[in-house]
Amino acid sequence: MAGNSIGQLYRVTTFGESHGTALGCIIDGIPPGIPLNKAIIQHDLDRRRPGFSNFTTQRKESDQIKILSGVFEDITTGTPIGLIVENTDYRSQDYSDIKDLFRPGHADYTYEKKYGIRDYRGGGRSSARETVMRVAAGAIAKKYLNLKYGILIRGYISQIGNINCQFTNWSVVDSNPFFCPDPNKLELLDKLIRSLKKDGDSIGAKVTVIAENVPLGLGEPVFDKLDADLAHALMSINAVKGIEIGDGFEVVNQLGSQHRDEMGINGFKSNHSGGVLGGISSGQIITLKLAMKPTSSIIKPGKTINKDGKEVQITITGRHDPCVGIRAVPVAEAMTAIVLMDHLLRYQAQCPDINIIKK
Amino acid sequence: MAGNSIGQLYRVTTFGESHGTALGCIIDGIPPGIPLNKAIIQHDLDRRRPGFSNFTTQRKESDQIKILSGVFEDITTGTPIGLIVENTDYRSQDYSDIKDLFRPGHADYTYEKKYGIRDYRGGGRSSARETVMRVAAGAIAKKYLNLKYGILIRGYISQIGNINCQFTNWSVVDSNPFFCPDPNKLELLDKLIRSLKKDGDSIGAKVTVIAENVPLGLGEPVFDKLDADLAHALMSINAVKGIEIGDGFEVVNQLGSQHRDEMGINGFKSNHSGGVLGGISSGQIITLKLAMKPTSSIIKPGKTINKDGKEVQITITGRHDPCVGIRAVPVAEAMTAIVLMDHLLRYQAQCPDINIIKK
Amino acid sequence: MAGNSIGQLYRVTTFGESHGTALGCIIDGIPPGIPLNKAIIQHDLDRRRPGFSNFTTQRKESDQIKILSGVFEDITTGTPIGLIVENTDYRSQDYSDIKDLFRPGHADYTYEKKYGIRDYRGGGRSSARETVMRVAAGAIAKKYLNLKYGILIRGYISQIGNINCQFTNWSVVDSNPFFCPDPNKLELLDKLIRSLKKDGDSIGAKVTVIAENVPLGLGEPVFDKLDADLAHALMSINAVKGIEIGDGFEVVNQLGSQHRDEMGINGFKSNHSGGVLGGISSGQIITLKLAMKPTSSIIKPGKTINKDGKEVQITITGRHDPCVGIRAVPVAEAMTAIVLMDHLLRYQAQCPDINIIKK
Amino acid sequence: MAGNSIGQLYRVTTFGESHGTALGCIIDGIPPGIPLNKAIIQHDLDRRRPGFSNFTTQRKESDQIKILSGVFEDITTGTPIGLIVENTDYRSQDYSDIKDLFRPGHADYTYEKKYGIRDYRGGGRSSARETVMRVAAGAIAKKYLNLKYGILIRGYISQIGNINCQFTNWSVVDSNPFFCPDPNKLELLDKLIRSLKKDGDSIGAKVTVIAENVPLGLGEPVFDKLDADLAHALMSINAVKGIEIGDGFEVVNQLGSQHRDEMGINGFKSNHSGGVLGGISSGQIITLKLAMKPTSSIIKPGKTINKDGKEVQITITGRHDPCVGIRAVPVAEAMTAIVLMDHLLRYQAQCPDINIIKK
Repeated sequence: MAGNSIGQLYRVTTFGESHGTALGCIIDGIPPGIPLNKAIIQHDLDRRRPGFSNFTTQRKESDQIKILSGVFEDITTGTPIGLIVENTDYRSQDYSDIKDLFRPGHADYTYEKKYGIRDYRGGGRSSARETVMRVAAGAIAKKYLNLKYGILIRGYISQIGNINCQFTNWSVVDSNPFFCPDPNKLELLDKLIRSLKKDGDSIGAKVTVIAENVPLGLGEPVFDKLDADLAHALMSINAVKGIEIGDGFEVVNQLGSQHRDEMGINGFKSNHSGGVLGGISSGQIITLKLAMKPTSSIIKPGKTINKDGKEVQITITGRHDPCVGIRAVPVAEAMTAIVLMDHLLRYQAQCPDINIIKK
Repeated sequence: MAGNSIGQLYRVTTFGESHGTALGCIIDGIPPGIPLNKAIIQHDLDRRRPGFSNFTTQRKESDQIKILSGVFEDITTGTPIGLIVENTDYRSQDYSDIKDLFRPGHADYTYEKKYGIRDYRGGGRSSARETVMRVAAGAIAKKYLNLKYGILIRGYISQIGNINCQFTNWSVVDSNPFFCPDPNKLELLDKLIRSLKKDGDSIGAKVTVIAENVPLGLGEPVFDKLDADLAHALMSINAVKGIEIGDGFEVVNQLGSQHRDEMGINGFKSNHSGGVLGGISSGQIITLKLAMKPTSSIIKPGKTINKDGKEVQITITGRHDPCVGIRAVPVAEAMTAIVLMDHLLRYQAQCPDINIIKK
Repeated sequence: MAGNSIGQLYRVTTFGESHGTALGCIIDGIPPGIPLNKAIIQHDLDRRRPGFSNFTTQRKESDQIKILSGVFEDITTGTPIGLIVENTDYRSQDYSDIKDLFRPGHADYTYEKKYGIRDYRGGGRSSARETVMRVAAGAIAKKYLNLKYGILIRGYISQIGNINCQFTNWSVVDSNPFFCPDPNKLELLDKLIRSLKKDGDSIGAKVTVIAENVPLGLGEPVFDKLDADLAHALMSINAVKGIEIGDGFEVVNQLGSQHRDEMGINGFKSNHSGGVLGGISSGQIITLKLAMKPTSSIIKPGKTINKDGKEVQITITGRHDPCVGIRAVPVAEAMTAIVLMDHLLRYQAQCPDINIIKK
Repeated sequence: MAGNSIGQLYRVTTFGESHGTALGCIIDGIPPGIPLNKAIIQHDLDRRRPGFSNFTTQRKESDQIKILSGVFEDITTGTPIGLIVENTDYRSQDYSDIKDLFRPGHADYTYEKKYGIRDYRGGGRSSARETVMRVAAGAIAKKYLNLKYGILIRGYISQIGNINCQFTNWSVVDSNPFFCPDPNKLELLDKLIRSLKKDGDSIGAKVTVIAENVPLGLGEPVFDKLDADLAHALMSINAVKGIEIGDGFEVVNQLGSQHRDEMGINGFKSNHSGGVLGGISSGQIITLKLAMKPTSSIIKPGKTINKDGKEVQITITGRHDPCVGIRAVPVAEAMTAIVLMDHLLRYQAQCPDINIIKK
């Protein structure tokens, strides 16, 4: 398998299986002279950590980040940053019983058929655990973007099942285990998740990501449009089935006279575009939405086949999220940060003499 | 501007402005020994051509493709294929009046601010005309995929405004200028488009792309998942604001027990996933949906600013589609073909000894 | 065949066969706002042109460059530059007789065996004619580097056969068809080349390239060292068999105390390194040497095999250089310029806040 | 600093400073199903290890490799391989005295000026210690190439100072600490190195690499020629100043009738080309030569400047090789293996239906 890198100038390459010795990544392209320490990364890792709440998987991982290179006396040197998180709490026996089965909705079948071999322990490389290093690399990008331009990249849960969550303010998002911005929906969500746990079932979710203070000029027209690279990065997160920027699918029923964002002396009069015009950031707020499928690992029995092609019933025990979408929030923020960081460096390469980007 | 290439092993690099001398591309990575001639490419170019119907822009371009290299005696040699289409019908004067204005919903503003200069004639590089070479490169990929595995990649209009078009069969799609699969909606669409033309307004659309006979095994886990690369390629098409694979945003309100595709002795019992599991094609039909924003170039007056920052009224004359989504159908097919072709070559690089892919 | 691109941020992709319709390239990554016109490119094309002197191949090509995109009112817009040169004087019949033979020292055999097909007309893609687009892309890079930093990249012939040419000054180099810097060797070279033509044989050469005013800071440690990327670019030129930077192979017999360049208040006291330390330009003059093999296409008969594997005698008529090294001079300059240009943009991406590079 | 990756399909990305916590790399693109364990990698690491002989640096590193991912039950799964070697024996105090000086012949000056900061401990990222991970990644490539095609990649010292070493057989190379193939020169080399140690000086060397059983067809014409990619990979090794393939610089004084390798019914009659024609492997033995500069870290005093630009005398104590070229032998083998591995996968991507490569 290749394809374990993302970004051209801020290039993140990851490795690691769910139940291997460790997960790790190399970040190549970080500029020199940036303040960086473990705490900056650990903060975001803790937000996605299993067991962060009793609504997410109960796997107990401390997920302690180690910085192995690229930082000298708490400053980046410009050399590649090697990061590692050791797997401390894996119980292989949990999975031995499904060793020869293909879990429905999982990558077991495609991995086995493509590679002729798979590490069946906890999904190996296809486990959501793989996102640990995305969050670590994203945390460094977030730090740089914020230091240099005051860019803020934050996400929240905008829907779970049929429960819509209206955005109120960010402190609400940080105050509950659902990353829910709507205080009036917390009890409903609590009920829903508990009943799903009881039923051994799971539910989908919608995640919204907001990027503020993004300077005008990020993104390359044609194939590497900013929104195209964001779609790539976000769709690469496990369980994502749909991506929207700005008005997204609502545009299907909009008129040109409604949709196009008019301009005035104070700038744009609306933001249907979601902050990107012709693939380039317009200086407006960037708004993204992700559709997250329900967790496939559920206790409720289902039909599948084994390696011999025989039909069998399967019920997946072990520790799993009733709503994988919840923990996707910090991951979606991280992927957004990685893409913006990459395009910021690309901008600097090609338009160093134009100062729009310097606010 | 960089970012004018797509694909790693089937690599397409394009150039050309709407009103420049010519549009062109280089395709690097085409295998040797493939039958190829102009007619194969011209067929798809004609499907997207302006003036193909009286419902799309009236610009009259013959769009004659020229093959400059890489083909010897109608067989590919494995050397890069150089393609070119000359611009014959451009009227720069059409655009002189908006030379100093930023058309709302267009890239004028972001290009001007990012690059400090822009070719204002017809949007230059940001014009939908740029998609000509996407279609040409896609036609070659389609040909190869079909020859080698019988892969079929076809698209249609599934919605325009609030008019839903149900799929019936492909011959209907080919028989009308809307690429509409639903014979009962043709009259409604005709009425809608005519009234929009009268009003000088435009409308959004939803495009569906279906890829059949895609072998199991295409796509690389983690960042270069097949669905992630498809999302990138499709979101890079002008005017696309949303992407769905399989059930897309419907998953938000689905239970895990509903969504996960169970398996039996005859294979999968459903296809909610849209033909991709863990980023790898599962052998099922691949289903994609695109949200297309309404054309921003409309006669209806709107507010914008000029280069001096003064607010002015703008009305865009010239020849434009009331629904840019219609002509996006062959472009979406082409981008899907380019991504599948690229991953087919990537598969061959890494799993040459495993024969799943050989049906 | 892939591998038709070079550079990461100043990315040049070429196409075209010796006897195809045209040769062309796309340059992706040129910054906006740079003055550019045909004359700038044509000047270098004329220096490498066949028939430039009666000591190089007699093929008569005017090699007129056409700029198809990326330049608006003689200024680069930042969009990709499409370039093309039409093949006007090709005589396929010249080559029909060797259609089924593998010319010794040529790529005929490896192309045929690797791809199962080849365009045998004049070597197709493996012809030295492929270097036309290298020179065109290099001319643009040279222009930019000179405008921005006063960088000068110039080459000369330092040896042909056993005739050593001492550098005197650049005006001598420009005043003779050998790019020879040594006025005392012109007559000897003239004699040598004439006798080789009489014998139907050819000779090797050594080319030296000098880059002046290169700012400190270009090149990335480890794999993409400046000297490593230069070695790649120069070794990719047809007929090159060896590359040296600075003292090159002389270092084998040097002591550390001799080789290492000491520093003083006025900078470096010597330049054994050739202007690169640890893969990064040091601000000193960059010196490179190339070993060019003798032309393989000679009239003198030789032994080879045909497609049936039968041993046959071959004698290659047609129009060929007795010393292919001569015309390699402008090509070597161009490749050096492309690499420096690429690393200049890479520098700007990663160290935009450090001003060493601004002299 | 970017540029810490090499290879397109067999992609190696490294991190780590001389005196950091650890050195590591990620190998992306290894095919699944290959037997792999620590011992295979450790064997080559031991060959380059400091303290391997009393003629190389006395630093005592056990250099124990750890495989963190990508291998399951001693078989590669196709997922990325994470490797790590911890730094156990680093003595930072050794270097504190040169903290503010720029060691002549080193990257201290260029790093400091480019990045504005450097890890001065033992050269940080620019230390020869960086090559540990090259050797590890090369060992895996060697294993695969040998398993699949019986390819053998081996190197030796062909010259140190003015002492020429004639090749006799590989068992001699393995039997002495100089990787010298010539039993008659061992005593001379021993004397030379001892006297250099006494003088506190160092000497250059020439390394030869031989690749046998390389199938025809590896390498991509034009920019990614096999020899161009080899030149890049080998020139990227610290201290390399020159590269030759086949006859190298001898071609300058050769006639075409001498150089071109004629063919007969039994194949090529000679191998002046060094096994590559038109950038593609010809099926002959591949021969490469490297010029290695003398170690710059010597006890003998030299002149340099400090951070304030003042001229000072410097004498470098600590543990250093009198001839860095010796330990470059396994590194050069490794880089050759990485390039051949990469092109083997690229071949499989583009010419899967042609069986020349299967001997």
